[in-house]
Amino acid sequence: MDDMNLQQLWVVKVGGAVLEDKDTLACFLDNFEILPGLKILVHGGGRSATRLSEKLNIKSRMIEGRRITDADTLAVVTMVYGGQVNKQTVAALQKRGCNSIGLTGADLNLIRANKRAVTDIDYGFVGDITEVNSTALDLLLKNGITPVIAPLTHDGEGQLLNTNADSMASAIAIAMATVYSVSLIYCFEKAGVLSNPDDDTSVISIFTSASYRLLKEKGTIHSGMIPKIDNSFNALRKGVKEVIITNASGMNMNSGTHISL
Amino acid sequence: MDDMNLQQLWVVKVGGAVLEDKDTLACFLDNFEILPGLKILVHGGGRSATRLSEKLNIKSRMIEGRRITDADTLAVVTMVYGGQVNKQTVAALQKRGCNSIGLTGADLNLIRANKRAVTDIDYGFVGDITEVNSTALDLLLKNGITPVIAPLTHDGEGQLLNTNADSMASAIAIAMATVYSVSLIYCFEKAGVLSNPDDDTSVISIFTSASYRLLKEKGTIHSGMIPKIDNSFNALRKGVKEVIITNASGMNMNSGTHISL
Repeated sequence: MDDMNLQQLWVVKVGGAVLEDKDTLACFLDNFEILPGLKILVHGGGRSATRLSEKLNIKSRMIEGRRITDADTLAVVTMVYGGQVNKQTVAALQKRGCNSIGLTGADLNLIRANKRAVTDIDYGFVGDITEVNSTALDLLLKNGITPVIAPLTHDGEGQLLNTNADSMASAIAIAMATVYSVSLIYCFEKAGVLSNPDDDTSVISIFTSASYRLLKEKGTIHSGMIPKIDNSFNALRKGVKEVIITNASGMNMNSGTHISL
Repeated sequence: MDDMNLQQLWVVKVGGAVLEDKDTLACFLDNFEILPGLKILVHGGGRSATRLSEKLNIKSRMIEGRRITDADTLAVVTMVYGGQVNKQTVAALQKRGCNSIGLTGADLNLIRANKRAVTDIDYGFVGDITEVNSTALDLLLKNGITPVIAPLTHDGEGQLLNTNADSMASAIAIAMATVYSVSLIYCFEKAGVLSNPDDDTSVISIFTSASYRLLKEKGTIHSGMIPKIDNSFNALRKGVKEVIITNASGMNMNSGTHISL
């Protein structure tokens, strides 16, 4: 595929911690708004869901960064991700003159998923993505609209499903790569992938599969970072032009970690 | 304006009580889905917001059917109306093959409002509608998409505002009446406007401003019904073709109460 003929599209995933600090969020939204051209925002919101669960005496259970989602927890994440975080973000982008629309995978039948099969673990109402409706996203983009997507999908049978936001961003980037030249940005609280987790200046500029093997063996890269990087390599293998892991202030500065196959 | 040349559009408002009973909701959604042609759904969701507020120890205060909305209550209604009720309804419509999209007034800058001025009463984060973006709604409708709208607006400065769903439906119907032949349906738990509130068979088929004066004086019509009927007359005066008040099962049967100037 010749990327030169395709229009640039940014797919930006922003993590929970960035969304929760008011100043960091404002910094992120300012930088997101000035990204030139077409863009899609995918957001998480994990910690606020945990806080609401606590207030409602619903136990939060996580396994390898994935939330076990019983019916009560699904209601909580639908309210927090699909309602509070999504709509506040849209209102904040409208203030900045960015004409956005808040969506879940159910809206416009955007992202279909299968409820994860029960093996040793029953994840509950958790969805594994089967299909991204790139035509619907394209319709919005072509009309100057910026989709803001919450990490919820549906099964087409009326059931909403909790879905990992990193995986959603990667799946959307891959689906859109057939019609756009796609840059996928994972924006989180760190400046990039760090060679020393305690030193925020130890950002690895270019991160290859060789670096990955090494740092995984050393235990430097673990838990939530592993699916993020797996999603990054997967996106690159499936036609996404570039993947960058960075923080709110680094987004427009060509800083952070560039993932390379 | 010659209605003969305009395409039919249904604007249906469904109330909280209909949404909360599983069977009634399924009946409503089945009937909504088979309405022929273009349609917009506006929903409330008041009682579930009250229930979540209770669980979170947030006091619900209502004055003349309007919820006093402090910051905590705004978070609750954003979660319940914009998240839970809205996204579940969208997923249920997708199951029925109705390609819907869940929205608030902030999405696509759809509905702007001013925070209500403080007089004797401080309603808090409550919005009075100033503008409906009919162009954005038209874009969705022309692409075969059914908007499902939660009763939240924004002020353009990043602030979401709680807004009465009956007023939203009326304002949307009026805005769309310039380009469509609009029927506005208020769907709630009763079969229509009743001449005897205790007798569900006492539906008034045609309700005029003369009937209104009479029944208001007698006290038969009061509280939440008054803004609904005021909104109905206002819609008719401003170009909406017809206004019908009915229940879930009456929606496709030409039953219920037809409001007439």
